[in-house]
Amino acid sequence: MAASRNASQPADAMTEPTRRDLANAIRFLAIDAVQAANSGHPGMPMGMADIAEVLWRGHLRHNPANPKWLNRDRFLLSNGHGSMLQYALLHLSGYDLPIEELKNFRQLGSKTPGHPENFMTPGVETTTGPLGQGLANAVGMALAERLLAQRFNREGFDIVDHRTWVFFGDGCLMEGISHEVASLAGTWGLNKLIAVWDDNGISIDGEVDGWFTDDTPKRFEAYGWKVIRNVDGHDPVQIEAAITNALTSRDKPVLICARTQIGYGSPNKAGSESSHGAPLGKDEIALTREALDWSHGPFEIPQAIAKAWDGREAGERLEGAWQDLFDAYTAKYPELSAEFQRRMVCKLPEDFAAAADAYIAKLQAEGKTVASRKASQMAIEAFAPLLPELVGGSADLAGSNLTLWSGSKSVTTDSANANYVYYGVREFGMTAISNGMALHGGFIPYDATFLVFSDYARNAVRMSALMGSQAVHVYTHDSIGLGEDGPTHQPIEHLASLRYIPQNHVWRPCDAVESAVAWKAGIQRMDGPSCLVFSRQNLAHQPRDARQVADIARGGYILRDSKGTPDCILIATGSEVELAMQAAAELGDGVRVVSMPCCEVFDAQDLVYREAVLPKDVRKRVAVEAGTADYWRKYVGLDGAIVGMTGFGASAPGDVLFKHFGFTVDAVVSAARSLG
Amino acid sequence: MAASRNASQPADAMTEPTRRDLANAIRFLAIDAVQAANSGHPGMPMGMADIAEVLWRGHLRHNPANPKWLNRDRFLLSNGHGSMLQYALLHLSGYDLPIEELKNFRQLGSKTPGHPENFMTPGVETTTGPLGQGLANAVGMALAERLLAQRFNREGFDIVDHRTWVFFGDGCLMEGISHEVASLAGTWGLNKLIAVWDDNGISIDGEVDGWFTDDTPKRFEAYGWKVIRNVDGHDPVQIEAAITNALTSRDKPVLICARTQIGYGSPNKAGSESSHGAPLGKDEIALTREALDWSHGPFEIPQAIAKAWDGREAGERLEGAWQDLFDAYTAKYPELSAEFQRRMVCKLPEDFAAAADAYIAKLQAEGKTVASRKASQMAIEAFAPLLPELVGGSADLAGSNLTLWSGSKSVTTDSANANYVYYGVREFGMTAISNGMALHGGFIPYDATFLVFSDYARNAVRMSALMGSQAVHVYTHDSIGLGEDGPTHQPIEHLASLRYIPQNHVWRPCDAVESAVAWKAGIQRMDGPSCLVFSRQNLAHQPRDARQVADIARGGYILRDSKGTPDCILIATGSEVELAMQAAAELGDGVRVVSMPCCEVFDAQDLVYREAVLPKDVRKRVAVEAGTADYWRKYVGLDGAIVGMTGFGASAPGDVLFKHFGFTVDAVVSAARSLG
Repeated sequence: MAASRNASQPADAMTEPTRRDLANAIRFLAIDAVQAANSGHPGMPMGMADIAEVLWRGHLRHNPANPKWLNRDRFLLSNGHGSMLQYALLHLSGYDLPIEELKNFRQLGSKTPGHPENFMTPGVETTTGPLGQGLANAVGMALAERLLAQRFNREGFDIVDHRTWVFFGDGCLMEGISHEVASLAGTWGLNKLIAVWDDNGISIDGEVDGWFTDDTPKRFEAYGWKVIRNVDGHDPVQIEAAITNALTSRDKPVLICARTQIGYGSPNKAGSESSHGAPLGKDEIALTREALDWSHGPFEIPQAIAKAWDGREAGERLEGAWQDLFDAYTAKYPELSAEFQRRMVCKLPEDFAAAADAYIAKLQAEGKTVASRKASQMAIEAFAPLLPELVGGSADLAGSNLTLWSGSKSVTTDSANANYVYYGVREFGMTAISNGMALHGGFIPYDATFLVFSDYARNAVRMSALMGSQAVHVYTHDSIGLGEDGPTHQPIEHLASLRYIPQNHVWRPCDAVESAVAWKAGIQRMDGPSCLVFSRQNLAHQPRDARQVADIARGGYILRDSKGTPDCILIATGSEVELAMQAAAELGDGVRVVSMPCCEVFDAQDLVYREAVLPKDVRKRVAVEAGTADYWRKYVGLDGAIVGMTGFGASAPGDVLFKHFGFTVDAVVSAARSLG
Repeated sequence: MAASRNASQPADAMTEPTRRDLANAIRFLAIDAVQAANSGHPGMPMGMADIAEVLWRGHLRHNPANPKWLNRDRFLLSNGHGSMLQYALLHLSGYDLPIEELKNFRQLGSKTPGHPENFMTPGVETTTGPLGQGLANAVGMALAERLLAQRFNREGFDIVDHRTWVFFGDGCLMEGISHEVASLAGTWGLNKLIAVWDDNGISIDGEVDGWFTDDTPKRFEAYGWKVIRNVDGHDPVQIEAAITNALTSRDKPVLICARTQIGYGSPNKAGSESSHGAPLGKDEIALTREALDWSHGPFEIPQAIAKAWDGREAGERLEGAWQDLFDAYTAKYPELSAEFQRRMVCKLPEDFAAAADAYIAKLQAEGKTVASRKASQMAIEAFAPLLPELVGGSADLAGSNLTLWSGSKSVTTDSANANYVYYGVREFGMTAISNGMALHGGFIPYDATFLVFSDYARNAVRMSALMGSQAVHVYTHDSIGLGEDGPTHQPIEHLASLRYIPQNHVWRPCDAVESAVAWKAGIQRMDGPSCLVFSRQNLAHQPRDARQVADIARGGYILRDSKGTPDCILIATGSEVELAMQAAAELGDGVRVVSMPCCEVFDAQDLVYREAVLPKDVRKRVAVEAGTADYWRKYVGLDGAIVGMTGFGASAPGDVLFKHFGFTVDAVVSAARSLG
């Protein structure tokens, strides 16, 4: 904590700033921004500033002028509450993040929100804050890099060759997801993943000894990581050595264990949780300025320091060299290059939409009765050969989720076409890894588990919705229809609660045709996640004309119309559409049936279309879905009826349960008639 | 796999069954029940039968005639898909689980559901299936035992002195929650927790080498566990030695690593995932009978084997001896004994309700304006001194969730009054540990995190709702009102999605008075979880008469009535009640305001009450809640209006966000007026 240079030397005259000076620039940007916002977390940036300085100035291969350079190193801040560390780094390195943005830290519309948000700030690779998920995203990015390199690199042309760096803290390490993804990273041997643990011994409740006594290095060795222990996170020489060592790893991900002091530099708050989540306060800031010998005002960066930080020239050189390589690659392998570029900008192959439509038309003509999980597999089998970017797997339920197709090759192989991930029983990690792969670029990730276990993964689904990043979540065994496994395995509230995640799309198709449309929609939706929800049991094929087939993509459509204005409308999804159709047949010509595979997409249609499907004045409406009944009040109102679930399921064969819980033609007919 | 005894000896004449015979009784009950159900998981019971035989016949201290014996060892099956192992054990040991129930495995209404359910089957301690949570429940039970022993045992009177045994598999180990709870168990040194790992190298997708390469013994050593390696799970002598060794642990939880063969005994399916989740099939069963030399028909247990398994006499002796000790304890410490018995039957202190009501009345009179999270802490401070059974903590957010009170003592101390758990950043593990403590008996557990991170814990909340076990989940920072932390930290869909979990209660109080009522309700609700949702920011006190104060407990009530039949009803919760009240003042005398702190409790009121609060014919209704708007259609129908959230939040001060997202008096007034 001693002053790093002679205090009598005027700061602006300084020509050769020390590394400590450079790190202090981060510290004071963080301190002053948090103070200005009167909100935020100064302790972590103060603690990790020295490490960040060594990494960002010496090793991170990036180009501040082009945050989208395809082969840049990825940098993630899993301990996202320390967002000011990242904003300071971006600003100082020369990204498009002017000082005014830092002055507006945590204010409405600023590019410096409370936690790093990839959709707000250039240079931020992912959105963090929910602990542990940044580490998971990093694993996904490192896997993406590995797979792209396998697919596109050629002798002498390592056009994909970058590292993924992630900072994380004790909080991330305590979270279960850190276990899931560190285990996978070890199994996969992701040697270009380098994780730096901010070992400061402090979490929000204080010194972690009372609740976090893991031998973390040993734990990561147990996962097969290369562990670099005992690095003084305030000694640039040791940090430098650790990073240099990390770069030599050939078959293991690397953990650098860096001992730091939270709030480093603050005379009264360093090493204490009091620096974690609140401004230091005016007086303590003054004392910290003294202690670190930083005489500059808030948001003032002396020119010499600014210059030493500016990474634009170096970045341009780096990207330029890569571009030369890539140009030569393009000359030699024009098709590969075009395909690489197509993948990296997430453009679907030209022929995809037409091929998908042809497949859907064929399905409609064939009229197969299969379980929709089987229809999902058929859709993968039909679409995946067109989409080398489709990569995914299941959380140890490949044979139940039906996620394997004939072209599946495990990512543990070095095949250029490796595209299948055996995730093991790790739903949360899987989903956050999907997010990381999507954010990296080059992939459309899918993952799969039972619908009920979307619970385990829930916040990662939310994060991709918030980030607007693509992912296809396959959730099978979608209702009490799964049968004997019982209420622990039977989703009830999951459909409704996934639908309520903003910007999330939930598809629950009623037959093979709708299943294929759902897959097409999930593949085409590049700005957010799609949950595709499939049945375990067989679902009858529904007849449709071409107009109806086209309307599936609108989320809800008239599957069977009434003669004239409907007397009553039955609205159903998935396995209950068949029930509604049978009930309609019994109820007669006045009844319309609306199939509603995706409420969110339907709600986003124009008013004219929605009114044509669900006329405002037709209030005799019955919703039928083997999920939370109350959800459907938004479509049937107070005057309609709902055949739905109001409690947990039970263990018995699926058909027995459907009867037991009142999913019968009679029940739907009675519900409709009860409306008078 | 060799036959365990001379095949020429008729089975029924056998007088001295071998241990292998005894284990085979489990195997064939499992094989035959799964075959009869044509559904289920035979592989795990076949693999763990030998271990179970040694444990249950030799070491488990239980009394089949009284599954509720207070000091019984707890046995949990975290790999719950192997439910037939447990049903076989319960049946063979003499629990009230007749063979007819096993024949009805997985059928509607049987006591043998697909996964073990504590509310269905005597002797089943918890409900498992969602992997990893059984291990977490076991940690909770072992902690409960430790704390009760600290509180109630006296020199020479170890009236609380039992072990918690848990079986678990690779799936549990892959799940993140296993990390969270194993870490805590190590920190807490729960030496009476003994976990047996079914190390069979197989999960549903096949041999785990491709996705699970952890060095698990090393990992658990990193958590501070005593690890017993390399136990042959089919050799009773080695198992015996391992258990005996485990029993000597004085300050560490114990992991027994037992190598087993899934589907042991099946000539063609042993050691393969094909035995995991499907019946062996008639032919393979016949071959297995031959291979294991088991000539008895389905569900037939030879008398000698049945006799050797019957644990009723031994159980009676065990409980009898304990009862003698307890009687002596009662004689010597009558008050302690009474208190122990009160706690173990989950009876609240006589004076609790009256004291709580007095506190609530006092709050109403005082009229304090505080954040409801602060009001929550005040309620804990008021109630906890009356409730030594109240034990809980926060996932590293004590100072934000405000879960500490003046009598808090960490469970890492040996204080008789230890009652506070520093959970670290482990939301899922925390919640499942709460469930374990509640299931053990003697405690009302509470836990806490930010509302948005209920996502991480979600399936454990669901499990306590399904099990009907008590837990109070404190969720603070309940809306965009939390401000600068931004959308990653701002719950939107969480209120609605928690409400949709069947049998769950969600309270979102509007002021200190409702907060205290919510806490009282959570404490009194012993058959399920209560989520108490609190604000970060201050909430104005609301005026009420005594009738209104009493009606809070009904979940929804008239906070401000109209003159005569209401022209319009404003329905609001939490921080938005104040807004509704101000809007009503502006809108005039025709407007009623309904405060709805708990929709589930309101919905459970009789029709007369509900109609009195929300008359069917008053359709001009406006709901106001800073959460998912659509949820409120169930109360306002298609004709009402909703002031709610339809997307994610943003990073800015809370008051700025309320305005930005339209939570203003003007907006509520406009919404009401828009209804014409």
